[in-house]
Amino acid sequence: KILWTLLVTILGYASSLPVGDDSICTAEELAKYSIIFTGKWSQTAFPKQYPLYRPPAQWSSMLGVTHSSDYSMWKKNEYASNGVRDFAEKGEAWVLMKEIEEAGEKIQSVHGIFSAPAISSGTGQTSTELEVHPRHPLVSFVVRIVPSPDWFVGVDSLNLCEGDHWMEEVSVDLFPYDAGTDSGFTFSSPNFATIPQDTVTEITCSSPSHPANSFYYPKLKILPPIAQVTMVKIKKNQPGLRPPYLNLPAKSNEVIDSV
Amino acid sequence: KILWTLLVTILGYASSLPVGDDSICTAEELAKYSIIFTGKWSQTAFPKQYPLYRPPAQWSSMLGVTHSSDYSMWKKNEYASNGVRDFAEKGEAWVLMKEIEEAGEKIQSVHGIFSAPAISSGTGQTSTELEVHPRHPLVSFVVRIVPSPDWFVGVDSLNLCEGDHWMEEVSVDLFPYDAGTDSGFTFSSPNFATIPQDTVTEITCSSPSHPANSFYYPKLKILPPIAQVTMVKIKKNQPGLRPPYLNLPAKSNEVIDSV
Repeated sequence: KILWTLLVTILGYASSLPVGDDSICTAEELAKYSIIFTGKWSQTAFPKQYPLYRPPAQWSSMLGVTHSSDYSMWKKNEYASNGVRDFAEKGEAWVLMKEIEEAGEKIQSVHGIFSAPAISSGTGQTSTELEVHPRHPLVSFVVRIVPSPDWFVGVDSLNLCEGDHWMEEVSVDLFPYDAGTDSGFTFSSPNFATIPQDTVTEITCSSPSHPANSFYYPKLKILPPIAQVTMVKIKKNQPGLRPPYLNLPAKSNEVIDSV
Repeated sequence: KILWTLLVTILGYASSLPVGDDSICTAEELAKYSIIFTGKWSQTAFPKQYPLYRPPAQWSSMLGVTHSSDYSMWKKNEYASNGVRDFAEKGEAWVLMKEIEEAGEKIQSVHGIFSAPAISSGTGQTSTELEVHPRHPLVSFVVRIVPSPDWFVGVDSLNLCEGDHWMEEVSVDLFPYDAGTDSGFTFSSPNFATIPQDTVTEITCSSPSHPANSFYYPKLKILPPIAQVTMVKIKKNQPGLRPPYLNLPAKSNEVIDSV
């Protein structure tokens, strides 16, 4: 019941995170989680300009980090770093990985990086494992929307620690963001750099307020979630030699169309 | 000097691995490695039909596993699993992840899965971390060649253990393989299922022996390596809070054109 309340609370925040502050965490040393990303970008839910070929609708690799409040991977209404720009525009992870590595070395604000394989369709799932630490209880990640100018989904500084314990499970609905670095309006817009760079903004059914926008659905109040992410704490007494990437649902096709 | 001999020995094997058998490994409990994948698929080295757009030459996510000799992810001259087929044809990792998970649960032949972000060009780098165990000292992975019918590069059962110790560093040149599931001849061939399925074969400059083949270079003796992978053992006394994905070279552009 507590779990359910939690879920509801967090879903209420939607992805206009951060949900978390990192008020002192006194949980046990380390915790491992399975993180499962579910794409919900179907032609039914998002009929407008749905990309069918070259490339069809799909998701990039997931790139994420566990960190303290001294690090921020991306934040709504702030400027994207060069690394986030490269990732959001091209799915190129290298610069972002270097930025994270530097934050880890210089100010020890990072615990670890994680990555999950790309998904070759708009609906499908991918998964990996992450580790959090009492001094680094926050999770951030990005997944690029492919094709798109510089659009992505992600989570910013989700706190998995609740005082003296780690959360058992948390799910977050994800909505599209614009990295503010490319002025394309539609999924398949040609490259067109935004100069000067704009901040990261959420894309809604009414903003940008222009009929050409791929997510412009004037009859909707809010967009359906385009993706969802679930983090499940891995039990410590799990047999030692099972692979870490567990708790995978049975089939990639079993994507729930609820919501 | 020993390290150099090792490198030379292993480079000599090229990617017609397995290099490793898993004769008894008595090394210390666990070892962690950085694994760095370098794409060398440039238009200079591979001018024929080099894919320039929609999509341009690039690499999928890397999906890998550390395991014992009771598991095999893929093997030259054997049939690809459904998971390897999905990954080689579409970059879809889910079925392969499930296969690995099952091998881990049923016969405990798997220690862990790892994944690294995709690379958005033919030359570039990506990196992640992996962990090996004395009973699971072998490394296998696949990276899909994009675009292609069902072509990939990878390593099959590379043994990181040498008797009583873990190797410090190992590099392997990678050459293209055909998963045997799609009969396309060129990078951008349309889908054309191979029925019955063929085995996994290495693609060389003379095989398949047909001028239409994208890797057919009759004047060459051997293809240049299309990629390279390096695994570097992570020191145990490394400060605790550095991110695990370290040892990254300074820039993605510093791809060596040697060999």
